[in-house]
Amino acid sequence: MNIAMVGTGFIARAHSNAFHQVGRFFDVPFALHLKVVCGRDPSRVADFARQWEWQETAAKWESVVGRPDIDIVDIAAPNALHAPIAIAAARAGKIVFCEKPLALSVAEAEVMAETVGKRPNLVWFNYRRVPAIALAKGFIDEGTLGQVFHYRSYYFNQSGVDAGKAHSWRYKRADAGSGAIGDLLSHSLDTARYLNGEITELAASTHRFVPGREVDDAVQVMARFSNGSIGSFEASRFGVGRRNGNGFEIYGSKGSLGFDLEDMNRLRFFDATESPAVQGERNLLVTGPDHPYSSIFWKPGHIIGYEHTFIATLGDFLQGLAKGEEFHPNFEDALRVQRVMQKVEESAASGRWVKVSGSYLSG
Amino acid sequence: MNIAMVGTGFIARAHSNAFHQVGRFFDVPFALHLKVVCGRDPSRVADFARQWEWQETAAKWESVVGRPDIDIVDIAAPNALHAPIAIAAARAGKIVFCEKPLALSVAEAEVMAETVGKRPNLVWFNYRRVPAIALAKGFIDEGTLGQVFHYRSYYFNQSGVDAGKAHSWRYKRADAGSGAIGDLLSHSLDTARYLNGEITELAASTHRFVPGREVDDAVQVMARFSNGSIGSFEASRFGVGRRNGNGFEIYGSKGSLGFDLEDMNRLRFFDATESPAVQGERNLLVTGPDHPYSSIFWKPGHIIGYEHTFIATLGDFLQGLAKGEEFHPNFEDALRVQRVMQKVEESAASGRWVKVSGSYLSG
Amino acid sequence: MNIAMVGTGFIARAHSNAFHQVGRFFDVPFALHLKVVCGRDPSRVADFARQWEWQETAAKWESVVGRPDIDIVDIAAPNALHAPIAIAAARAGKIVFCEKPLALSVAEAEVMAETVGKRPNLVWFNYRRVPAIALAKGFIDEGTLGQVFHYRSYYFNQSGVDAGKAHSWRYKRADAGSGAIGDLLSHSLDTARYLNGEITELAASTHRFVPGREVDDAVQVMARFSNGSIGSFEASRFGVGRRNGNGFEIYGSKGSLGFDLEDMNRLRFFDATESPAVQGERNLLVTGPDHPYSSIFWKPGHIIGYEHTFIATLGDFLQGLAKGEEFHPNFEDALRVQRVMQKVEESAASGRWVKVSGSYLSG
Amino acid sequence: MNIAMVGTGFIARAHSNAFHQVGRFFDVPFALHLKVVCGRDPSRVADFARQWEWQETAAKWESVVGRPDIDIVDIAAPNALHAPIAIAAARAGKIVFCEKPLALSVAEAEVMAETVGKRPNLVWFNYRRVPAIALAKGFIDEGTLGQVFHYRSYYFNQSGVDAGKAHSWRYKRADAGSGAIGDLLSHSLDTARYLNGEITELAASTHRFVPGREVDDAVQVMARFSNGSIGSFEASRFGVGRRNGNGFEIYGSKGSLGFDLEDMNRLRFFDATESPAVQGERNLLVTGPDHPYSSIFWKPGHIIGYEHTFIATLGDFLQGLAKGEEFHPNFEDALRVQRVMQKVEESAASGRWVKVSGSYLSG
Repeated sequence: MNIAMVGTGFIARAHSNAFHQVGRFFDVPFALHLKVVCGRDPSRVADFARQWEWQETAAKWESVVGRPDIDIVDIAAPNALHAPIAIAAARAGKIVFCEKPLALSVAEAEVMAETVGKRPNLVWFNYRRVPAIALAKGFIDEGTLGQVFHYRSYYFNQSGVDAGKAHSWRYKRADAGSGAIGDLLSHSLDTARYLNGEITELAASTHRFVPGREVDDAVQVMARFSNGSIGSFEASRFGVGRRNGNGFEIYGSKGSLGFDLEDMNRLRFFDATESPAVQGERNLLVTGPDHPYSSIFWKPGHIIGYEHTFIATLGDFLQGLAKGEEFHPNFEDALRVQRVMQKVEESAASGRWVKVSGSYLSG
Repeated sequence: MNIAMVGTGFIARAHSNAFHQVGRFFDVPFALHLKVVCGRDPSRVADFARQWEWQETAAKWESVVGRPDIDIVDIAAPNALHAPIAIAAARAGKIVFCEKPLALSVAEAEVMAETVGKRPNLVWFNYRRVPAIALAKGFIDEGTLGQVFHYRSYYFNQSGVDAGKAHSWRYKRADAGSGAIGDLLSHSLDTARYLNGEITELAASTHRFVPGREVDDAVQVMARFSNGSIGSFEASRFGVGRRNGNGFEIYGSKGSLGFDLEDMNRLRFFDATESPAVQGERNLLVTGPDHPYSSIFWKPGHIIGYEHTFIATLGDFLQGLAKGEEFHPNFEDALRVQRVMQKVEESAASGRWVKVSGSYLSG
Repeated sequence: MNIAMVGTGFIARAHSNAFHQVGRFFDVPFALHLKVVCGRDPSRVADFARQWEWQETAAKWESVVGRPDIDIVDIAAPNALHAPIAIAAARAGKIVFCEKPLALSVAEAEVMAETVGKRPNLVWFNYRRVPAIALAKGFIDEGTLGQVFHYRSYYFNQSGVDAGKAHSWRYKRADAGSGAIGDLLSHSLDTARYLNGEITELAASTHRFVPGREVDDAVQVMARFSNGSIGSFEASRFGVGRRNGNGFEIYGSKGSLGFDLEDMNRLRFFDATESPAVQGERNLLVTGPDHPYSSIFWKPGHIIGYEHTFIATLGDFLQGLAKGEEFHPNFEDALRVQRVMQKVEESAASGRWVKVSGSYLSG
Repeated sequence: MNIAMVGTGFIARAHSNAFHQVGRFFDVPFALHLKVVCGRDPSRVADFARQWEWQETAAKWESVVGRPDIDIVDIAAPNALHAPIAIAAARAGKIVFCEKPLALSVAEAEVMAETVGKRPNLVWFNYRRVPAIALAKGFIDEGTLGQVFHYRSYYFNQSGVDAGKAHSWRYKRADAGSGAIGDLLSHSLDTARYLNGEITELAASTHRFVPGREVDDAVQVMARFSNGSIGSFEASRFGVGRRNGNGFEIYGSKGSLGFDLEDMNRLRFFDATESPAVQGERNLLVTGPDHPYSSIFWKPGHIIGYEHTFIATLGDFLQGLAKGEEFHPNFEDALRVQRVMQKVEESAASGRWVKVSGSYLSG
């Protein structure tokens, strides 16, 4: 299968790496070829292609996404480009992979999801494939936590404190759509849906710490989930001291779980069904045995890093593709996240609680 | 000075201990005599008096608080009794110590604060005297954090999960006033005011996980502070796995701080002004040297426990009394907390943001 | 019961505190009276007596330990005084409490143990009564660890780095007997015996980092235990950054345990008999329920401090005394520790492995 | 450059991965070709070659290492094969890479080092390139720790507890040379040399917990370093609960450092030159900025895993090769480690302290 990728930034490196590495760890019945990488700056795209072994380069994605020799179009470009590329690629019948957040708006995301339809597709909410998060999902599905009371989420980094960064596309409303909401909260929302189901109502607040910023620096959310639990979310680019502080805590009647991406190979687990004298938070080193992906990467005690979440996402996608199974998170999942993001902005503007429809088509 | 205390429960033990111990650690120019302890159950009060060396017992506080030989009235009784006892004691000219939360309502708290007036008084928001929290206060006052962006607070225990506890006064609206709000959030709010100043606006939500409960099991708050920072608070009796999980994180332009009461002798500190290669969260063992109260209790590395926060509160009060200084937290501080608690309940009922007046008299 | 205590230093404060506090937490059928405190410096002993409420002071212990109104003689004086005071007190028929290490030498310790004989006695190896250590003992006795492979112990503080301290009695061979061995390693050895049984053989090494020091600054030991496990011990006054870093790890066929005194309320526990996916180190907050001493002090999640280990030691002693039970650790236990200390010095001097006799009388 | 690799086990996967990945992260002026992989089992080597994209397979290394089209011979085979392969490859003029431990004995290692001579070579003591360990090295070289007092090292896993594993080559003396010594302690010794310099004297002890085992299950060492510090080492395959617990603590007059491979992206750092109130152990997340390798892999807060230590080792080797610089750790470094390993066995056998010659040739 031939891949065309749009983008040459940090995340494009992570994608390229996954394309090269997936076959070394996952048993997949497809050979992936890194065919074309697209980028506007000729010298940058040439360097990128050399470093990451792409066969060709192109200046314009428009000339590439419809090429008959391309099977997969992968979007690793700024948010504003997600919709046009994805729609063009889908119309050309390609398999589409898209970075998160899916779109600038729900309206865009709806068109994207509709266009891509039942075609194989993937959105890079890569943290679902952190082994510790996959393990958490397994525990929850087995009923290990009992009735869930609290879902608490945070995503703090310090990227916004440097005022000089305001020139990046991530701080432009037209390019990024939003700030901490799309950049950070979208990850938290996808993880929350994965682990705890749909949000039914929320109240939110957004904040700009730097006057004149076009997008939110920080966002807070109080939420109710359809399973009766309550949620709190906070995401900020002003969490000084946190590099990639993406975590959650879940409290249920039978136990609790905790996670932080800065200690990505760990899951905290409290089992309230044990004898009281031995109840205590466990620090699970999620590198196997009997842990997700542990037989695929190294061996017990040998930790994995950030990039492996992309490899595992791709590995699961390709294995599912071979079996004809639907992959998650896909455009529909990402559309649902986009709806919640929009409700967050609505609530922050109105100061009121808003209902989040669980329905995909009616919004 | 002769003390009369009302109450024989857990917290009355902590107060009694402080009365005995304060002179052994603090240099105070007063001898404290544990004169009378009041409690309705004769055998219980007799046992308590024996164990904690109170000279006399009494069944009714009404017969005690006005006695001419009593100098200090200490209220360690359920919340509904705080107002009548405090008002009677203040009218009788006594020094009044009161457990938190101050009252069942702002109206009650206002009368209490007005009646006690300028008379020496104290409210047992004892966590201000955790050495780690006092150290945090010192850092903040010296400008160590720079401009504060985020104040994040949580207080989780698991006391509410056991349905059998619903018979306790803590679950009766008439006795307790509120649930997690008065029991847990009030502590968080006092600490927040102490460290980060006044809240100006908030939106809140309360929850009952057990049908039929008269009081809130959990509460969430989004807040804005007068210093421009934003706050999030969450308090719950359904934090399964947390015994006394009372903590905060503060993120500022120059650094951050973190604390959790289950590791009471620790303060986490991140200094963002250092050379990047050595920036990292420090785990300060706040047992000295140069730490608050460290020369008063044991010696570096020899940790203190829960009870010492009461001893230090009392020690500071008595040393201030000798110098004619006003003590904090006092009834006025607790009234301010009570106002915020009331706004939390208002916002939770209306689903709207509410303003919190910073003014003491006008409310 | 009337107590006479010799000493007015830091440890004498901890003892005095325990004498006052024991009856408030433990149900003991004895009233303790802090009768006389002995110290050479008249103003110092007067201040001490005032602060800690001793009824009388005395300059010379010789005039006190035989007084008919004294029931208990408590030794909180430098090591060189332990033997003469203990022997005099024992000959006068008193109950004797002694600080650790018991003596300057095995020879001294043997005379002390023989003289005190079957009379009730206690040595302040207080860390046996850290709730987390008592819990560890319970786990081990129940077979939770299976066959023990490794016992690893360390005790690091930074007290020796300041060269100015060399004037303290703790750095004089005549006063202290040894350095890190008696000050720190003796605690480690008592804990090891308590948890893992007797050492049968050892090889050791001692070090002085400051030229001219009379006593060891650091000591290392490799050991074999009678249960077939192997041990490593290291104790040092040059552990820069460690205030009271006294800990151990025990690895057995069914699990492992870990402890550090700087986090005194915690016990780390790994259960290797569980399903592999949930095996992970637990961080037990040893404040109950179902934990040692938890019903005696505060309540779950409310931590205790350094001083409570003395209170609990005394509480257990007095409850045992009432029942006619032998208390541990006593002079015989401390003599056994002294023998191992002497073997450590012998091995360090010879560079050879030495056998440690398990026999009390034959040495 | 064409590579021939001998071995198809776990470590061969890590090597293959590094050969593919190095050029994507490091700017290296060599193209690496994975030419031939050698393994005895035809189906196994075929599978391996397919998964890791080796161009050819071979059953016998003897037919490969001298091939004129081969530039680099990489040894990822059991210990007993290191010497014959390395010597043949060196004689054939190849660049030689060898897994650790270098050899079965010092005699073998001497011949290997002599044969390889000044030819470019590398020994896979990959942990020197853990960014946290490289950062520690930088701190030490800058004098951040002052005079070093204590070097403490441990390496615990639980691989030996399963009696069934005794059939692996790792438990055969003829194949492995030693047990925990070569498998685990050799890593600890290389790291110690790298960070703290040469050991001059040691006393050691080895243990077998399973009767009949040919090699040591555990080893303990007390050591003296040429810089005046003292060391303790312990390595064991019976550390139940530890998956890859390879760590160290270094205490110096100005501060201390700590590391554990299970939290590979972290370095603990205590700076004793700061104001006492802010002294505390820092938990550095060693992912940049200004950290070793941080600009090469992902970005701040995005952690790396086990495999990156091999990529970084290879990247440094190739960059050095281009500049004509000598690489470390090389055969000479590994020979020095081998000498210490031999002294460890000698001391364990004799029960005596032994001197370790610092001289390379004279042993």
